[in-house]
Amino acid sequence: MIKKRIYSPGPVDVSPLTLLEMAQPVMHHRTKEFEAIVAEVVEGLKYVFQTKGDVLIFASSGTGGMEGAISNTLNPGDKAICVRGGKFGERWAQLVSAFGGEPLNLDVEWGQAVDPQQIADALKADPSIRAVCVQASETSTGVAHPVKEIADIVKGYSDTLFIVDGITAVGVMDIPFDRWGLDILVGGSQKAWRLPPGLAFAAVSDKAWAAVEKCTQPRYYFDWAKEKKNLAKNTTAYTPAVSLMVGLAQVLREMREEGLESLFARSASYARAFREAMLALGLKLFAPDSPSDSITAVYGPEGMDAGAIVKHLSSKFGITIAGGQDHAKGKIFRVSHMGYLDALDMVTAVAALEMTLNDLGHQVELGAGVRAAQKALA
Amino acid sequence: MIKKRIYSPGPVDVSPLTLLEMAQPVMHHRTKEFEAIVAEVVEGLKYVFQTKGDVLIFASSGTGGMEGAISNTLNPGDKAICVRGGKFGERWAQLVSAFGGEPLNLDVEWGQAVDPQQIADALKADPSIRAVCVQASETSTGVAHPVKEIADIVKGYSDTLFIVDGITAVGVMDIPFDRWGLDILVGGSQKAWRLPPGLAFAAVSDKAWAAVEKCTQPRYYFDWAKEKKNLAKNTTAYTPAVSLMVGLAQVLREMREEGLESLFARSASYARAFREAMLALGLKLFAPDSPSDSITAVYGPEGMDAGAIVKHLSSKFGITIAGGQDHAKGKIFRVSHMGYLDALDMVTAVAALEMTLNDLGHQVELGAGVRAAQKALA
Repeated sequence: MIKKRIYSPGPVDVSPLTLLEMAQPVMHHRTKEFEAIVAEVVEGLKYVFQTKGDVLIFASSGTGGMEGAISNTLNPGDKAICVRGGKFGERWAQLVSAFGGEPLNLDVEWGQAVDPQQIADALKADPSIRAVCVQASETSTGVAHPVKEIADIVKGYSDTLFIVDGITAVGVMDIPFDRWGLDILVGGSQKAWRLPPGLAFAAVSDKAWAAVEKCTQPRYYFDWAKEKKNLAKNTTAYTPAVSLMVGLAQVLREMREEGLESLFARSASYARAFREAMLALGLKLFAPDSPSDSITAVYGPEGMDAGAIVKHLSSKFGITIAGGQDHAKGKIFRVSHMGYLDALDMVTAVAALEMTLNDLGHQVELGAGVRAAQKALA
Repeated sequence: MIKKRIYSPGPVDVSPLTLLEMAQPVMHHRTKEFEAIVAEVVEGLKYVFQTKGDVLIFASSGTGGMEGAISNTLNPGDKAICVRGGKFGERWAQLVSAFGGEPLNLDVEWGQAVDPQQIADALKADPSIRAVCVQASETSTGVAHPVKEIADIVKGYSDTLFIVDGITAVGVMDIPFDRWGLDILVGGSQKAWRLPPGLAFAAVSDKAWAAVEKCTQPRYYFDWAKEKKNLAKNTTAYTPAVSLMVGLAQVLREMREEGLESLFARSASYARAFREAMLALGLKLFAPDSPSDSITAVYGPEGMDAGAIVKHLSSKFGITIAGGQDHAKGKIFRVSHMGYLDALDMVTAVAALEMTLNDLGHQVELGAGVRAAQKALA
């Protein structure tokens, strides 16, 4: 018997309770019953996003939320700083280009966080910049960018939006949308919400809504003003992904019951324990200086294709983790600390990794990583 | 005890088997296991769309498929005939406008089918028209537009695409994409595929691909060329709605096993039986001349708000049907003949309708509609 365990940075594992909640007979979306779900879900999302403002919901993957952030706020020709320190930073730049904007690429070495001073300098030099786009947690590298520090800088520019991809950050790390003064923060169901993929979320500030009003970009499915109007009536412009919405209501109840503080503390402790374990095994962290609490990227041992580790974990132990993307392919593996996941899952992941490394001919002391994780979790 | 029965034109009922299939632990999308699902699903969709060409899949509701049909093929300024005979015909016109095109509205009275001759005349008068957009089945009115006849006309214009919203038609009515020579045909998971909402499909002809290549419209999430490239490798550009894809594989297996001929015949017989029942009860059909097999729209008895029928069916019998939309609101009710639904469901719907009409003070002979339906089904 080999159990399936999913420790990849999205999709993450979904609890059996949520799976069964979603396996209920399908509900019609134009009913009082479903309107109650929408109302509950919106309140729950506001809690997790830490905002009194709007949180929009779309039937799409997270990228649909990112597209809307650009296509609803930037006009053709508008300049936007895009922090490119990984695959998803590159996605911001691609989106800005796709909608006729001018991405000002702030390239950061993969594995490193952006220096906020560079953003301050760029904005000072060119106040016509209309947006700063960054990842709160860069899923491809496991880096947490300094969101609060950048927010403090962008706040000084009344016509510049701070747009944050929080897809692997919201609900995992403390990013108080209102208090820090972000303008757009995007999330996705298959991450902290431990649901299947298919829902994107976006918190939107008043400053961002002012930009939406002035935006001439063509848009329809991801028309944020239309969606806001519909959500005010507890409905959606187009047929919503009803089963995912029902699951979301269930998960948000659990998240509110646990409380944000505990959610954040748990992910942080899992991430810390996993990093300690990797160091104890003599492995090198890909993002040692500013690690995300949702995901850890680790170099494979020298001379070993990290993809072999991913493959062996899957074939021998039924464990799904992720490899590196693009030019990090073969160099790193990535393990998640979010979703339906507890402390012992992290111990399990480390134990399987130790056995895998030995199987692949890289001898490590069995239990050494496990012990380090246990100590950190204690 | 009141069982819940959903006879609305989407979302439709989903079988318990499919619900449980989708309740499996979530699968990672970048795995061989999921690639096999994508490959299977694409083959199954080609079977149902009756095409050897591409069928694309998006994590969105059907409207996302409609948006892509416009944003990937029409350039700003391009003219498109939009047959507006219901809410979804209006959506084509809104989409063409949203992306800077010029919708040439061909307005048809709600409940009527378009006369193909009008399209022939319009194209003859202005061969610079780049597209003809229509619904195969107009969900808001229950009308089937003459897709084959229009296809025969549009075929004569090498630079004009025939774009068909088949959201409540594909898998219900015989619309052989390749044989009839359509250019784009859009579908949605919560209709014939008897799945929850959250997936859009689009079949695309070579003629349409040529237009995609020349299209300068900004697009990213619904970038069809990118999606085609990914599907060729049995993957998707962005995180797919994995649970729905797993359910889709299951449903497509069932659909192939039953065969298209039987699928079409079943819906046609349910629709015919339901219409006979309504006539036997002295009710008037909203689309008597060119009815869709997926959905029947019926006028409420004179002087009665049709919305009261919808409400009473829900509160007393647990049955969800749909009312009229926009200016048909309060005038009609709509019942579906697609999804996880059999002949006896149609009998049940008619029986509950009879009891509802009597409860609401419009006396009908109990069983008269049921008998007519039984006869038609026999």
